[in-house]
Amino acid sequence: MANSFFDAHRDTLTQALDAMRKRDYWTPYPERASGSIYGETAAADGEAAFNGYLGKAFDLPGHPSEGEVASDEVSPYGIPLNLSYPLLPVDLAMKASRSGAKAWRDAGPDVRAGVCLEILHRINKRSFEMAHAVMHTTGQAFMMAFQAGGPHAQDRGLEAVATAYQLQSAIPGAVRWEKSQGKNPPLLLDKKYRIMPKGIAVTIGVSTFPTWNGYPGIMASLATGNPVIIKPHPTAVLPLAISARIMRDVLSEAGFDPNLVLLLTDTRANPVGQDLCTRPEVKIVDFTGSNAFGEWLEENCRQAAVYTEKAGVNAVVVDDFSDFKGMCRNLAFTLSLYSGQMCTTPQNIFIPRDGIKVGGETMSFDAAAAAIAGAVGKFNSDPARAVHVLGAIQAEATADRIASARGMGKVLLDSQKIDHPDFPDARVHTPLILQIDAAEREKYENELFGPITFIVACDGIDGALEAWRSTVAAKGAITSAIYSDRPAVLEAAEGLGEELGVLLSVNLTGGVFVNQTAAFSDYHASGANPAANASLVDAAFVAGRFRVAETRVHVEPVTETS
Amino acid sequence: MANSFFDAHRDTLTQALDAMRKRDYWTPYPERASGSIYGETAAADGEAAFNGYLGKAFDLPGHPSEGEVASDEVSPYGIPLNLSYPLLPVDLAMKASRSGAKAWRDAGPDVRAGVCLEILHRINKRSFEMAHAVMHTTGQAFMMAFQAGGPHAQDRGLEAVATAYQLQSAIPGAVRWEKSQGKNPPLLLDKKYRIMPKGIAVTIGVSTFPTWNGYPGIMASLATGNPVIIKPHPTAVLPLAISARIMRDVLSEAGFDPNLVLLLTDTRANPVGQDLCTRPEVKIVDFTGSNAFGEWLEENCRQAAVYTEKAGVNAVVVDDFSDFKGMCRNLAFTLSLYSGQMCTTPQNIFIPRDGIKVGGETMSFDAAAAAIAGAVGKFNSDPARAVHVLGAIQAEATADRIASARGMGKVLLDSQKIDHPDFPDARVHTPLILQIDAAEREKYENELFGPITFIVACDGIDGALEAWRSTVAAKGAITSAIYSDRPAVLEAAEGLGEELGVLLSVNLTGGVFVNQTAAFSDYHASGANPAANASLVDAAFVAGRFRVAETRVHVEPVTETS
Repeated sequence: MANSFFDAHRDTLTQALDAMRKRDYWTPYPERASGSIYGETAAADGEAAFNGYLGKAFDLPGHPSEGEVASDEVSPYGIPLNLSYPLLPVDLAMKASRSGAKAWRDAGPDVRAGVCLEILHRINKRSFEMAHAVMHTTGQAFMMAFQAGGPHAQDRGLEAVATAYQLQSAIPGAVRWEKSQGKNPPLLLDKKYRIMPKGIAVTIGVSTFPTWNGYPGIMASLATGNPVIIKPHPTAVLPLAISARIMRDVLSEAGFDPNLVLLLTDTRANPVGQDLCTRPEVKIVDFTGSNAFGEWLEENCRQAAVYTEKAGVNAVVVDDFSDFKGMCRNLAFTLSLYSGQMCTTPQNIFIPRDGIKVGGETMSFDAAAAAIAGAVGKFNSDPARAVHVLGAIQAEATADRIASARGMGKVLLDSQKIDHPDFPDARVHTPLILQIDAAEREKYENELFGPITFIVACDGIDGALEAWRSTVAAKGAITSAIYSDRPAVLEAAEGLGEELGVLLSVNLTGGVFVNQTAAFSDYHASGANPAANASLVDAAFVAGRFRVAETRVHVEPVTETS
Repeated sequence: MANSFFDAHRDTLTQALDAMRKRDYWTPYPERASGSIYGETAAADGEAAFNGYLGKAFDLPGHPSEGEVASDEVSPYGIPLNLSYPLLPVDLAMKASRSGAKAWRDAGPDVRAGVCLEILHRINKRSFEMAHAVMHTTGQAFMMAFQAGGPHAQDRGLEAVATAYQLQSAIPGAVRWEKSQGKNPPLLLDKKYRIMPKGIAVTIGVSTFPTWNGYPGIMASLATGNPVIIKPHPTAVLPLAISARIMRDVLSEAGFDPNLVLLLTDTRANPVGQDLCTRPEVKIVDFTGSNAFGEWLEENCRQAAVYTEKAGVNAVVVDDFSDFKGMCRNLAFTLSLYSGQMCTTPQNIFIPRDGIKVGGETMSFDAAAAAIAGAVGKFNSDPARAVHVLGAIQAEATADRIASARGMGKVLLDSQKIDHPDFPDARVHTPLILQIDAAEREKYENELFGPITFIVACDGIDGALEAWRSTVAAKGAITSAIYSDRPAVLEAAEGLGEELGVLLSVNLTGGVFVNQTAAFSDYHASGANPAANASLVDAAFVAGRFRVAETRVHVEPVTETS
């Protein structure tokens, strides 16, 4: 069974390796939520499966537990969830992780890749179900929850599996080493190389993109032979619980201990992340979340390799630009998408205070700022349509932040609480856009998570570039964008972007947005600024999850006289 | 010039990449110190070049300095050295490293690989000169200094260059990304990917193998675009100074700033390692040396990726074994080579106290221990011959340790101070072999650096394996060896070795020794036990030295109507 998974998905793996080299668009997991692709009953089946979880204890057959824990999950759309999960104490998790570890290690890279690919394949088939689970924990609108929580997350997981396979399969299992000794018999050794996992891997989930940010670390660790403990964010457990169930099912079918993947659910009242991540058995930690906890992990988990993605202040720099309308259209979608709750959404828009040139005409700062704010306002003017892009606000604290931010600058576009046609209790707020001055750095240099944008008046394009550079250098960023017609400005921005370690998007006016990345092509985060210490998915993200063990055995040469 | 280096050495690089995949024996740098290979005048030229350094300030043209520093180097063979080097304060090093960094970064992987390969090629040509420099700083005998300080060190440097090239060249420089949109025009982006070095790299040299342990980190960092500051051990500067001179010459000829490689010489009275390695500009630290400083670096250099090789307690486990004589011959050379001053020399030999079977006959513990000690004694019985394997004791402290260790157990072979026929003041001591009991763990569980071996009486083979396992798990090891005729014991040992992260050698009785490894085939250290946190040279050792910067530019699709 284990080998047949590898055979079944060998083409997918080959294509993924090819895609990583070419870095062109490719995916085996269609992003269209269509019955013609996923099956005519897939949408209804997925919704039914999701509804089947509500008000119940989540079923994880054979999962170790000492009772149940009622989760902190609350739907941002206001529907009652009432979910509970196995209560897994940290000590029990350490013990349960151990039992299947040796067999999984000994299975080798091919079998492990096959199991991981079958897991992703099955998760893909259940993308509708996952969409509902992601939607009602993160607040993402359904279509985004389908894509970002489903196929796009699966892509990132596959990228990690392919990278792990590539690095491991470069090492032969066994060789005969022969060193010539001139007229004497050669020196001979039989050498064996074995991929050794590092130890227990922990993935700390995030509330907004539990699967997209979770799968890369989970899959990279699993594919390199490490048992994985998934500790979801207390408010976004279900998507990772469904994922864990599928992982455990596939592991069992392949003849492995399902406890190689464990779900450890904690609550905000009783968090266990610090205890869990500092256990000596834990050798790998993947984390997405707040700066405070990310930095704590980096500082304190000395026994583990720690991969973090934290917060930053993504930015847009606006220079002279002819297709200003195209820019406004593009930014309107960007700033509205999931109400700015993406780690890739820009917060600061830096514009020269003396204005810019648009098609040869001068446009004042005020006019430019008003046009951007107006485009966002217009984009969200029809609530029934807007909710499908805005989604809902994941956390009450984010809604509170919108209210408290309102006084920080001149309001160019006020945030409105709007009604969702399908969910009367949904927490939906349109973006807030404020104008401030580059001198008010203390206001815009920190992340204000949520649909809050600063349009910042700067001293010329040099001042705008410097405000961008210095805020990102100090506080980090994952993405940035520039709009300019001037080659010299673009060249300067490109150089700065490369040094800052942001994914820089240039002159996006069409259907690609600064806050979206494509697996197999775009790198997500860099490790070069405070927003993250790692990049999804590069060799450095995977290579440290395993080592190579070598045994070499003397071989007696066959001499001519014998 | 820069590109022509790449062209000139392309075949070497291709063969190195092939060798790493096959892991068979391969080298472009012949280990035979022969005039027919290196040129008939090479030996004399090398000696003359070495003599030319003595009593002078080492010449590094254009190297920044604030005067000179007289080094702590003292020849273990007793010849006067009186060497001095540029005095380079840490602040000046930080500044000087910066000036050429951008051009080196922008040169890209091919040009950098070419420069690194030319460096290694030129270092290779000067292997005789290097042999003298290594001999008179480390105490290695000439032939070992030639091989381990020359071609074998160059091999390890090349391995690092090849790994760096492989990881970097897997990433395309630029691609057109195209995502089909059905009947609508496709989404198009032009994407650029650029390899970005991490920052300044520091290599902290070791007193015993300055080039062998130094080149991998230096070459991995340089090949991935980072400026390198070499801080040699205060007692072994010259080999790295000669290397730095060659590196700087090649960089200059290729049109780069020679200050991309700096030599920072300190003294034991005024050490600068802590200050240097914690500078915020320093992003990579490679270290070989003591546990104390290695652990300090791991603990305190939070701004850098830190790769350490420290000390451990390598071991041999002896079980029933037919070719006992072959084992004794093999161990006699192993324990004598460079007077046990290798990080790969075994310290503890674990033997069942009830004896072993040798060809069906029982051999008592005492007889086995006496036979091993006797073989070592016999091997070194002719001082004039022995000095060519023993070399000299690098540090006075090591000679003192032999004296103080004498009382720790029953002396099976006493250490003798012997005369060197060519160097009357040479510090040469034969190995000390002591018998102790497994219960005296506090004596053998710590490294006693130098020619000191414990033969430890254990409770059967299980006790021997457990003494090996538990000491290595607690204190670390780089190598281990087992001798056994019994498949079950070998299988158990192999499993333990894999988990402990030692390079395990099995039944070595010929011309391969547990303390020698071959580049492109053997992994040196694993990171899985306290002796090291990294492995020479795997992907994890190199992948974290660079990142990828990405810029993506909107491309307007050509529509059918336009």
